[in-house]
Amino acid sequence: MSAAGPGGLTRLSINQETVKQWSLPELAEGCAALGVSAVGLWRAPVQEYGVERAARLMRDHGLAVTSLCRGGFFTAAEPEARAAALQDNRAAVDEAAELGTDTLVLVSGGLPEGDRDIAAARERVAEAIAELAPYAAERGVRLAIEALHPMFASDRCVVSTLGQALDIAERFPAEQVGVVVDTYHLWWDDQVAEGIARAGRAGRIASFQVADWVTPLPEGVLLGRGQLGDGCVDLRGLRESVDAAGFRGAVEVEIFNPALWARDGGEVLAEVAERYLLHVV
Amino acid sequence: MSAAGPGGLTRLSINQETVKQWSLPELAEGCAALGVSAVGLWRAPVQEYGVERAARLMRDHGLAVTSLCRGGFFTAAEPEARAAALQDNRAAVDEAAELGTDTLVLVSGGLPEGDRDIAAARERVAEAIAELAPYAAERGVRLAIEALHPMFASDRCVVSTLGQALDIAERFPAEQVGVVVDTYHLWWDDQVAEGIARAGRAGRIASFQVADWVTPLPEGVLLGRGQLGDGCVDLRGLRESVDAAGFRGAVEVEIFNPALWARDGGEVLAEVAERYLLHVV
Repeated sequence: MSAAGPGGLTRLSINQETVKQWSLPELAEGCAALGVSAVGLWRAPVQEYGVERAARLMRDHGLAVTSLCRGGFFTAAEPEARAAALQDNRAAVDEAAELGTDTLVLVSGGLPEGDRDIAAARERVAEAIAELAPYAAERGVRLAIEALHPMFASDRCVVSTLGQALDIAERFPAEQVGVVVDTYHLWWDDQVAEGIARAGRAGRIASFQVADWVTPLPEGVLLGRGQLGDGCVDLRGLRESVDAAGFRGAVEVEIFNPALWARDGGEVLAEVAERYLLHVV
Repeated sequence: MSAAGPGGLTRLSINQETVKQWSLPELAEGCAALGVSAVGLWRAPVQEYGVERAARLMRDHGLAVTSLCRGGFFTAAEPEARAAALQDNRAAVDEAAELGTDTLVLVSGGLPEGDRDIAAARERVAEAIAELAPYAAERGVRLAIEALHPMFASDRCVVSTLGQALDIAERFPAEQVGVVVDTYHLWWDDQVAEGIARAGRAGRIASFQVADWVTPLPEGVLLGRGQLGDGCVDLRGLRESVDAAGFRGAVEVEIFNPALWARDGGEVLAEVAERYLLHVV
């Protein structure tokens, strides 16, 4: 695996879900061995391994943690459920701080059962962020609102476009609340370039994640993301857009795909790095 | 089945794919028996039955044809493929005229294999419509650009929002090119109310189609539409929006769902009418 090409692998971050078959030590060793210097982590495997232990493991391998996935799920209407969600999100902030990442990715949550008022659900997301943002800021963690593809609007994330994510983020100071630009979720939107420029001007791009779009979508559609270059997304064009908007952070590869998980983790990681050099940098 | 309620069934149109298990005569008889006065038809079953014969069948049962589905698939880049698509669309216009409907629904087509330039593909759609619209207008047929949900952007329809559909439609006279407002495809979009108002002001709403959004989505996602009231779409709110925008046409129920197709057609039709009265009018 050569790291040649403009920028090489210096900006590459591997979200651990891309190589979900790996334990945290395997992830740390595999990334370090390939010359990858950053990872994105998920709460559940980190909790299982131990937050402090995971933080030390990454530090010992020279790995930066570019994001923690994920907080959010803020759309419940009942006070008790809302309080529980906020409590869980404060814990997510604490974990992010302990891991040494400044970015907690937020997935808003879907429409509650029987609810048909998506505008009100989005408003509840904004209200929860208003409560969480100061807590996060005190701990050096920025909240990163992620728009998920509209096919997830009912059951996972009522925030569906970069424009919607920015509409919420802009109610708060830029250093407290940013947005995620994820190519898989946003590639289809003719307003995405405008949204990226708007986000960049305000310093709101907290995270740039990449995956490709491939069809047919699997049942449930969650695990259908494509390896870089296998689909129709103009990954390089979107990377250039976030760069032109002033973003200097990591390019985090986050692919949920059981076909990748069934393979040897090291082989998948090498392929991701190769595809990254071919299609992204 | 009572037709009580504001407006009763007078505006209801049944798209034949909703009761795909039925032949055209069964559809005509079933609708007439229930007091439904309009249908939306599809090219393949109409061609198989005979276009003139289908037109007579509908007339004999007092049924208006509110739309013919579908023309389009305009995104090929090669001249031969483009010429073939246009030729096929002229045939679709002829069929629409013969059926006595003034509305040909257009589904734009997806990205060609290996193509990552969705903006250029959308432009090719507009170019094809420029060639087709005068031909259709001479035959009393208006082209209705349908935005499909963004989950179809790569493989079926590069036009994903009402705003995008209007951006194309507005290049042409309103009497030649309109748009479809389909609740299934558009419900998630925070700009849909604005788009409906914009479409209404310009007299561009050529068709209003309804289906509900339910999850989990099935593999391939095409056949996952929900019976009215089973999902999270504010059907009544969207119907009120198109009404407020000046639309006075049919409310066409178009549900692709194998679970409905497995049942008795008459039972499904009665259920659709009941749900329509409960959730739409």
